Amino acid sequence: MSKLLIVGTVAFDAIETPFGKTDKILGGAGTYIGLSASNFDVESAVVSVVGEDFPQEYLDLLTRNNINIDGIEIVEGGKTFFWSGRYHNDLNTRDTLDTQLNVLADFNPKVPDTFKDAEYVMLGNLHPLVQLSVLEQVENPKLVVLDTMNFWMDNTLEDLKKVIARVDVITINDEEARQLSGEHSLVKAARIIANMGPKYIVIKKGEHGALLFHQEQIFFAPALPLEEVFDPTGAGDTFAGGFIGYLARTNDVSFENMKSAIIYGSNLASFCVEKFGTERMESLDRSEVNERLNEFRKLTQYETKMN
Amino acid sequence: MSKLLIVGTVAFDAIETPFGKTDKILGGAGTYIGLSASNFDVESAVVSVVGEDFPQEYLDLLTRNNINIDGIEIVEGGKTFFWSGRYHNDLNTRDTLDTQLNVLADFNPKVPDTFKDAEYVMLGNLHPLVQLSVLEQVENPKLVVLDTMNFWMDNTLEDLKKVIARVDVITINDEEARQLSGEHSLVKAARIIANMGPKYIVIKKGEHGALLFHQEQIFFAPALPLEEVFDPTGAGDTFAGGFIGYLARTNDVSFENMKSAIIYGSNLASFCVEKFGTERMESLDRSEVNERLNEFRKLTQYETKMN
Repeated sequence: MSKLLIVGTVAFDAIETPFGKTDKILGGAGTYIGLSASNFDVESAVVSVVGEDFPQEYLDLLTRNNINIDGIEIVEGGKTFFWSGRYHNDLNTRDTLDTQLNVLADFNPKVPDTFKDAEYVMLGNLHPLVQLSVLEQVENPKLVVLDTMNFWMDNTLEDLKKVIARVDVITINDEEARQLSGEHSLVKAARIIANMGPKYIVIKKGEHGALLFHQEQIFFAPALPLEEVFDPTGAGDTFAGGFIGYLARTNDVSFENMKSAIIYGSNLASFCVEKFGTERMESLDRSEVNERLNEFRKLTQYETKMN
Repeated sequence: MSKLLIVGTVAFDAIETPFGKTDKILGGAGTYIGLSASNFDVESAVVSVVGEDFPQEYLDLLTRNNINIDGIEIVEGGKTFFWSGRYHNDLNTRDTLDTQLNVLADFNPKVPDTFKDAEYVMLGNLHPLVQLSVLEQVENPKLVVLDTMNFWMDNTLEDLKKVIARVDVITINDEEARQLSGEHSLVKAARIIANMGPKYIVIKKGEHGALLFHQEQIFFAPALPLEEVFDPTGAGDTFAGGFIGYLARTNDVSFENMKSAIIYGSNLASFCVEKFGTERMESLDRSEVNERLNEFRKLTQYETKMN
């Protein structure tokens, strides 16, 4: 069985959408990636940091989903990273209301000894130097996937470029791809980003799906058209967790197999947005996932009568 | 061989994009639909109106593409419909600089006798009462497709609803679907529009592809990711022409076959935007079209290793 090492925040979120608001609930990229990847039978571990205020029940939730938490440091007397945001009516944009780094400010990631030989590494959205430190602790991974965002492009671009140079796959959204490359056309943007290092570029377009670029090949996976998006928080991380979880489970990093991985990631993300926070991901069962995979297939697969 | 009857403007356009500008060139929904559908071996005719100022060479161009022009009235002493617009930098939005209705103001469409038995009818974007008049002149069509836009929703909604009630397929863009239905979710919007009459709803999302809704089924066709969009004028009409052209050619109006029709429409639209106006559509050859269909296939078709 492949080992999957994940680094990412395990945190508190407080979310407002047009449909309601939450108090402090479980959030963080590491959490969403881990829960998403747990839908595949892989041995996974999350490397992160929390404060003394972090409830044991949240840690138990991860453990119950077969996620190794030996790499989650609990800082005595420390407070857990907290993010609060409010989504606009279209749910495509949001304002950050509050960010409290707390224990994340001095996070020094420690990869558990049992995961230094992980074949699959998911660098969730975090400071590039933290991502780099994790990369330096793993021995010889088969595939490294990087997720990042515009914040790091604005503030720590040189460090970010060092990480980008060392990963196999990068996942970013369309606006971030444009920012990073300076090109409006996503085809051109992907080519420029590929020159920075990654052999595979995944550009996430939210409700408009995701594109996978490799050399001159392109694959596109739609998002499932939903009647209602309730809360988009964690959708990108869930997508990434499904992507790498599927690759780790099938242990095949070919472009052909990455096509399916993108579909699996989109599929899991479509569940994530149906309820607040991690709620929907916690209750997900295998038959629902398979049923919706079938919907994805019907959404894009076709036969032609003439050519 | 199936007959395809098209009603739509045959007109002059003057276009500005970030890449350049044109003088008065050949334009109009009827033109683009006709040229696009001419890629299929169907017997097609365009019903329209032009002024005495309309160059014979433009009419010859249509004839050369096997489009019957008996239904294009030439008004003596009249001036041809003229539209002028300027696209913004992202090419997704545009400002109308000038609209001169001219002979279109009193357009009274006359379907040629030889096309009153057309099996396929494409109602291109025009005043709903003109579309209705064409519908009333055809005997017993197998499939009627309606294209329209927000202008008619704003100004002649009740007339538009009469047409919508009588067609099999409607094609509109995402914002128009939202306006017409009052629903933000496209899934909900399609359901509401289906209740107005059409059994099939095509929602065009430009660079983000197109959705086909039928009862509870959904099919999605991406737009081909392009390095450069040069001029989006006519892309929607070209899409519609490819859609109905393929259906007329295969003479099969099942949902399964409409999936391919959407792909063919998207494929032809991807050529249209590569040059100004109709230029690219005029030079298109069969092998280019087939090669790009193959790219479309590779873009979305996949096999999974686990289920």
